[in-house]
Amino acid sequence: MTDALTSPTPSTTHTASDSSNENAVVLLSGGLDSVTCLYWAKDRYAKVTAVSFNYGQRHNSELVAAKNIANQAGVDHKIIDIDIAQLGGSSLTDHDMTIPDGDADKFPTHTDNIDNDAIPNTYVPARNTIFLSYALAVAEVTEANHIVIGVSSVDYSGYPDCRPEYINAFEVMANLATKAGVTGHKLHIQTPLQQLSKAQTIQLGNSLGVDYSQTISCYKADSEGRACGICDSCTLRKRGFSDGGLADPTRYSAN
Amino acid sequence: MTDALTSPTPSTTHTASDSSNENAVVLLSGGLDSVTCLYWAKDRYAKVTAVSFNYGQRHNSELVAAKNIANQAGVDHKIIDIDIAQLGGSSLTDHDMTIPDGDADKFPTHTDNIDNDAIPNTYVPARNTIFLSYALAVAEVTEANHIVIGVSSVDYSGYPDCRPEYINAFEVMANLATKAGVTGHKLHIQTPLQQLSKAQTIQLGNSLGVDYSQTISCYKADSEGRACGICDSCTLRKRGFSDGGLADPTRYSAN
Repeated sequence: MTDALTSPTPSTTHTASDSSNENAVVLLSGGLDSVTCLYWAKDRYAKVTAVSFNYGQRHNSELVAAKNIANQAGVDHKIIDIDIAQLGGSSLTDHDMTIPDGDADKFPTHTDNIDNDAIPNTYVPARNTIFLSYALAVAEVTEANHIVIGVSSVDYSGYPDCRPEYINAFEVMANLATKAGVTGHKLHIQTPLQQLSKAQTIQLGNSLGVDYSQTISCYKADSEGRACGICDSCTLRKRGFSDGGLADPTRYSAN
Repeated sequence: MTDALTSPTPSTTHTASDSSNENAVVLLSGGLDSVTCLYWAKDRYAKVTAVSFNYGQRHNSELVAAKNIANQAGVDHKIIDIDIAQLGGSSLTDHDMTIPDGDADKFPTHTDNIDNDAIPNTYVPARNTIFLSYALAVAEVTEANHIVIGVSSVDYSGYPDCRPEYINAFEVMANLATKAGVTGHKLHIQTPLQQLSKAQTIQLGNSLGVDYSQTISCYKADSEGRACGICDSCTLRKRGFSDGGLADPTRYSAN
């Protein structure tokens, strides 16, 4: 790997050279970012377990994509049912709420101070915390000491639980929560996309062999996995391909 | 409240005087500790929501107890299905593993450095982290800024996720994870039993009107909610009543 993009700075000081005998858990939604993380992890750890969540998403095409991608990558895959939808509070799980269309200019960046008005209604309360907590349980059972999550500070939707300070705090907590922490088997939360733009993420994935036509990022994907092309998530994804001057293999329903 | 036991030191510097208009979420298993926390919270917050988990416990008598107790206390109650059992690794959810009988002398105390050998097989990987993460989601939706959990450093079973340093780290993470943290609506993890022995917890509960005959702590309770009297949890509970010179209203199957 000679391209600097294939070795983005992880959240910790852990280096690739001593990780080849170690195991990792990857949070895999089936979207562009998480699939890139899956291939990044596969390239560097001995064993990778992908974990996806069935949390009352409007369509399950994302989960179908996750399953196919994990199979294709040849990694173990767990789908965990979780009960977030009954809690309400998000347009992604509450079908009475409207998912907003995208406006790329309004997205905060890592240099902004986000405020409540900038948090869109697609935010699911405590979602990444719940996801990472399950990943922590899987990491204990599979003796993994890396959890990989595809958050980014550069092109993100303004969710508080994507910020580096949040990820660092979760890592500190996780090392106090578990047997691993007690026995000195330190757990790392790896965020290989943290400093990458969407275009750089796609370039990284291309170099690792990701087939982006199979990934689904859209909040409103139809039952055949075709993207709407206009929601926040589609807007960010489209801009990534376009900024990088890369062909966009996404299947759009509007096309 | 003049009894010092009714105002144990919480994990934070938050005082009772400014909490009467605030909301709380209480983790309610149906056991002695969590029911004491429920009554402690009811005594001090404007609105309390109790949250219980259906996680493949061997018997659901604990959940039935939780439901009855929440009804009797007149608080909202949510039961959330979670999918820990499929992960394996604990005798509480893996029915092929044997739950050990209690040996009160072997329990670590807050002055011990716990090690892996001291962690019993009743430990469920990342359990408190998953429970607290869901409580965090409920707290966001119900606009609560207190989550109450009945962990104790004094009489505990050697689980890493009951230690004060773990709770403090979760609180730091939680305040970075959520809208609440972004808007300065600070979230507190309250641990009113942290410095109390089991006997002191029972004294606190008695002063608040808890009916301990209704609570179930046993890891092996039968389908009618009767306790085995010999598992770790029963051993700690029995010792609490006995150390405090208090009548034990627990219904034992062996009696």
